[in-house]
Amino acid sequence: MAQAYLAEHMDRLAVFELAFRKMPENRNYIVAAGFEDVLEFLSNFRFTSRDLDYLRGRTEFSKQFLESLEQLRFTGTVYSVPEGTIVFANEPLLQVIAPIAQAQLVETYVLNQIHFQSLAAAKAARVVTVAQGRGVVDFGSRRAHGTDAAIKVARATYLAGGDGTSNVLAGMRYGIPVFGTMAHSYIQAHEDEFASFEAFAALYPETTLLVDTYDSLEGVRKVIDLRRKLGDRFRVRSIRLDSGDLGKLAVESRKLLDAAGLTDVRIFASSGLDEYKVQKLVDSGAPIDAFGVGTKLAVMADAPELDMAYKLVEYGGQGRFKLSSQKVLFPGRKQVFRQIENGQMVRDVIGRFDEQLPGEPLLQPLTRVDLNESRRRFRDEFGRLPQRLAKLDHAEPQYPVTVSQRLQVDLETLRSKLDQPVSR
Amino acid sequence: MAQAYLAEHMDRLAVFELAFRKMPENRNYIVAAGFEDVLEFLSNFRFTSRDLDYLRGRTEFSKQFLESLEQLRFTGTVYSVPEGTIVFANEPLLQVIAPIAQAQLVETYVLNQIHFQSLAAAKAARVVTVAQGRGVVDFGSRRAHGTDAAIKVARATYLAGGDGTSNVLAGMRYGIPVFGTMAHSYIQAHEDEFASFEAFAALYPETTLLVDTYDSLEGVRKVIDLRRKLGDRFRVRSIRLDSGDLGKLAVESRKLLDAAGLTDVRIFASSGLDEYKVQKLVDSGAPIDAFGVGTKLAVMADAPELDMAYKLVEYGGQGRFKLSSQKVLFPGRKQVFRQIENGQMVRDVIGRFDEQLPGEPLLQPLTRVDLNESRRRFRDEFGRLPQRLAKLDHAEPQYPVTVSQRLQVDLETLRSKLDQPVSR
Repeated sequence: MAQAYLAEHMDRLAVFELAFRKMPENRNYIVAAGFEDVLEFLSNFRFTSRDLDYLRGRTEFSKQFLESLEQLRFTGTVYSVPEGTIVFANEPLLQVIAPIAQAQLVETYVLNQIHFQSLAAAKAARVVTVAQGRGVVDFGSRRAHGTDAAIKVARATYLAGGDGTSNVLAGMRYGIPVFGTMAHSYIQAHEDEFASFEAFAALYPETTLLVDTYDSLEGVRKVIDLRRKLGDRFRVRSIRLDSGDLGKLAVESRKLLDAAGLTDVRIFASSGLDEYKVQKLVDSGAPIDAFGVGTKLAVMADAPELDMAYKLVEYGGQGRFKLSSQKVLFPGRKQVFRQIENGQMVRDVIGRFDEQLPGEPLLQPLTRVDLNESRRRFRDEFGRLPQRLAKLDHAEPQYPVTVSQRLQVDLETLRSKLDQPVSR
Repeated sequence: MAQAYLAEHMDRLAVFELAFRKMPENRNYIVAAGFEDVLEFLSNFRFTSRDLDYLRGRTEFSKQFLESLEQLRFTGTVYSVPEGTIVFANEPLLQVIAPIAQAQLVETYVLNQIHFQSLAAAKAARVVTVAQGRGVVDFGSRRAHGTDAAIKVARATYLAGGDGTSNVLAGMRYGIPVFGTMAHSYIQAHEDEFASFEAFAALYPETTLLVDTYDSLEGVRKVIDLRRKLGDRFRVRSIRLDSGDLGKLAVESRKLLDAAGLTDVRIFASSGLDEYKVQKLVDSGAPIDAFGVGTKLAVMADAPELDMAYKLVEYGGQGRFKLSSQKVLFPGRKQVFRQIENGQMVRDVIGRFDEQLPGEPLLQPLTRVDLNESRRRFRDEFGRLPQRLAKLDHAEPQYPVTVSQRLQVDLETLRSKLDQPVSR
């Protein structure tokens, strides 16, 4: 397409908007994320000589086009909602305004990153919400879909209010807290479980000991034995349960620990957790202080995709649209106006970008992203979200998002033009 | 853990095995993949000075340990089933034999890659199977979970018999065929649909024209108009349907094309496809020649995870095991023996690595991976798979995988040792 635009001398400014068409049945909101990567990608966008060599080896591309790629940089501007903003179906999360070929070439990366990071942040937000202040740590790197997903799920979890991650690379890259506990293999490698606990606590006095390698409650008893052996030098902060009936084992473990005077030792739980299981555990009053949430969060098992698309809405200053069945696209560059009443979000209106409507205009120039600011933004946004939408269950009614009258008129105007015969 | 192993002078060889515990309900087989990345990762494994700076800034690590990391390389050996092999629950796909700290440090990457690439290849295999020889192209990069997933889903699709991908970077990296068609935005950017078809076909005579931007059958009529206008210069190879009732639209489009003498113009379909929808379309006799399969394949929507783990089974020559509830792990290094009768896989037996059992021993030294060989391996393996397992529906009985008697005895021996009181 880029080569065709060049051949046709089509180099005017295009406006592309990124939005998703439908909220998944089991989500009441999505959390916009991924903008840091988009910004970095666009700043560094270029074809390397290796890229160009590959393209030269194909038959589709003219010398003139390949030369134009060599010089190509992203010269456009980008608007987005601030990272951490709560968003809904049909709202543009991001706008790319650039010469059309440029805007087109960056599509796949932009969509890939915003789509999956926003889904991950929304999933993580649900887990953090139901944990009601208990710790939440991302444990999902092993089963995330690839390395990029692994570190960005860690980031998204932190953005959504989680405490940190077990992924050290994500800790290094994003400056987020890193949590580590021992694995079963460490215990198995020792001649017996007690010896492994003793050795690990000698090196890391304030560690977390994993108790379920052979039998969870026997493991807890060995932690208590270690307390007897070490006396005041015992500073182990927590135990980790990683299999079985976590609620029941937490109750039993708490009893054993308390009876031994270890009321300060916290209970950390992991193993197949997601927001539904965490909610159940919390509701049952299980004495669990923190959750390690892995696979189900990392792969976003119950909502792994959004019908998100990157669509041309304007070219050369003129609105563009699309009518493919059930995929109507309103023409023209838009703005989202968020109306707040008594500290609560009450309604969003999607209008033309140049309309003056009541509410906070969400789309702003994207110039920098700071994870800690995004985290605060989400916390503040979540504080304004109506109660019914903050819950796990499907909320009725969903959050109201309407389209301004001027946008409706713009669509009708274009649609009526289409009904007239076009030259063939 | 690595620091603890160093402090405890635990540097003997460990054997870790990678396997998944349970076949997902909607899968009858998994396709082992991801070994190329594992091999590359292990060959280049090291801590960079930037990594070490980060670790130095933390409080947990001793100078001695950090110095040991500086020199650390992966010196172990790896065994795996050949990439493209069909595998089942509890079968080791890969073994890492290395000094324990090394084997432990590579866990997350190894598990991350094999887990998700094997799932992706299995999903792609299902799509390719039901397409029954029709083309299958990966279209999922936009909505895969991150950039790593995007290019590796493309690779996995090709491994499983797909024809190629729309991801140019994957084409460049893996040497797999790249397919491109125009997007709606290209059409929208033009004053009318016909003009966009004409311009695109002028540059790419043998292209695929996307017909559903405004109305699919109107779009097809414009392709026919283009034939009239271009006469013998018309060489458009296919049209693409991307919304609506694909089966019905394909029938109608075929009629229009055939009536205009365009019997050579093929029909390409995309839009929310997965193996179930492809099967339905093929069964209905819809005249579709090739499928672009995107999101549902890329995110493996119906089976996004396996209960795959990387487990210590041997340390210092001695078998290790684990009893966490419902997660029993057989001790010792294993081999998988695949028994073939009359060209059909009939049974796998998991035995000790040094056992001599009938059948092909699947685990072999991992020294190189070639995507084309992996693709052939899968095709051959699939040809030996019993019919009932090749189908989409859950097969009963599942493929039989048993455990050798010697392995059973090994477990019982270790278990009985555990029942004796251990020193505290």
